[in-house]
Amino acid sequence: MNLWYTEQHSPSVRFSIKVEEQLYSGASEFQKIDILQTTEFGKILTLDGLIMLTEKDEFIYHDMITHVAMATNPKIKKVLVIGAGDGGTVRELTKYETIEQIDMVEIDKLVVDVCKEYLPQTASKLTDPRVNLYYEDGLKFVRNKENDYDLVIVDSTDPFGPGEGLFTKEFYGNCYKALKEDGILVNQHESPFYAEDALSMKRAHQRIKGFFPICNVYQVHIPTYPSGHWLFGFASKKFNPIQDLDAAAWNELGLKTKYYNTAIHVGSFALPNYVKEQLEDAK
Amino acid sequence: MNLWYTEQHSPSVRFSIKVEEQLYSGASEFQKIDILQTTEFGKILTLDGLIMLTEKDEFIYHDMITHVAMATNPKIKKVLVIGAGDGGTVRELTKYETIEQIDMVEIDKLVVDVCKEYLPQTASKLTDPRVNLYYEDGLKFVRNKENDYDLVIVDSTDPFGPGEGLFTKEFYGNCYKALKEDGILVNQHESPFYAEDALSMKRAHQRIKGFFPICNVYQVHIPTYPSGHWLFGFASKKFNPIQDLDAAAWNELGLKTKYYNTAIHVGSFALPNYVKEQLEDAK
Repeated sequence: MNLWYTEQHSPSVRFSIKVEEQLYSGASEFQKIDILQTTEFGKILTLDGLIMLTEKDEFIYHDMITHVAMATNPKIKKVLVIGAGDGGTVRELTKYETIEQIDMVEIDKLVVDVCKEYLPQTASKLTDPRVNLYYEDGLKFVRNKENDYDLVIVDSTDPFGPGEGLFTKEFYGNCYKALKEDGILVNQHESPFYAEDALSMKRAHQRIKGFFPICNVYQVHIPTYPSGHWLFGFASKKFNPIQDLDAAAWNELGLKTKYYNTAIHVGSFALPNYVKEQLEDAK
Repeated sequence: MNLWYTEQHSPSVRFSIKVEEQLYSGASEFQKIDILQTTEFGKILTLDGLIMLTEKDEFIYHDMITHVAMATNPKIKKVLVIGAGDGGTVRELTKYETIEQIDMVEIDKLVVDVCKEYLPQTASKLTDPRVNLYYEDGLKFVRNKENDYDLVIVDSTDPFGPGEGLFTKEFYGNCYKALKEDGILVNQHESPFYAEDALSMKRAHQRIKGFFPICNVYQVHIPTYPSGHWLFGFASKKFNPIQDLDAAAWNELGLKTKYYNTAIHVGSFALPNYVKEQLEDAK
């Protein structure tokens, strides 16, 4: 059986993966959901035909969306996670005994149900007693929150379809309001390389800058995302992700991570000139 | 015309680019050489069906294979470049007025001729009066050199076909001998992500470590190479690429670079845990 999954990374670039078997295919009111078994990447979750995660490289995304903020402010106790239906972000957060409460708001219950069944690698910690799962629109959920969270993580899909609202000015403004005065916002920040992704990236940066006095971008290598060059945003009312990093304290926790370490924490904020220029353009 | 170039990044991963036109196709005694015109990446050079460079992202590779060493030791005067038939590495080196001599040894004259005709973006500085072009086997060329160069750059193809010899113990030993006592070796170091590339990467590191007291690896984002996560090796008899970086001095030169800057110089040596473990395994 010569079955291939193909994703369009730009109008004239395709990325294809050999598939052993389509394990699940379904649709919610929000999107199409598929689970594929592959040789190279293990199981893959796609939403509307775009890779969200693979078992082989999800550790990169999930390490970097959580540990950078947690190492910058080890006193984080209450976290809001928006999106992240696969559970990977929550899995990393539950490694911190100091976290007391994780509110996770995922618009699509079917994504969570499917991941619980097919992707225990990421979803198994969703049953942690500190986790409250809300199947709601993150955009609406955060509207009613004020001075409530130490950390908000926006683990969204791309800025079209169900994820669109999570890239708006209104949403970032409400995230700002939902955070305590020393709060941190981390968001999935698209990529600088292909034109359409770069446009989303610049727009997100511009909007976040409108609210947060400290607003940085850091980069990671995610081989199964378009171009492999992916960005996260770090915005804060108070914390500087480099100056406030207490590397010794984080290392003392003894957490096992496959990508993150305190050196790459610092290193990932050093961006190529062409990315810096795009971000400066976004002023 | 629906024409696509496809490259196999691993036995079950394919990367495809829409092609407007095949501008050149030929073969030397060493390899097949093709130039393709594409919309997304401009012109592309492939050797034996593998992408060597694209006009869109070659700046990343060429910035990072040259400026890290040059910023670490601004006194570099005499450079040996092995491979690099497209001319991009030489183009970056010729930006330094302080460099007096560049010996470039490319086994395949046809690559240089084709690049001069189709890829002036990279090849145009091969006529710089400081450049001596040798169409020879780099492996043999370096055998007769002793205490001669401040910098050796190995800008090779993958470790099979014509590039195979440039990953051997004998070759690295001869590079060591060819370098002055404060010499630096920079090499194309493959990738940590797909199994076959990672094996080459570990082997190269192990072999280089056998000769050089200082032996580091740094990473870059090259979207058109397998996984987009690529490595270079920095080995030296004397210089530490972080401690000996004089950022102020390099910035004073006022060179224009699209990827490299002195912050990413430092940042790129911070490696993910899974890559560090691979390199430690290679001991």
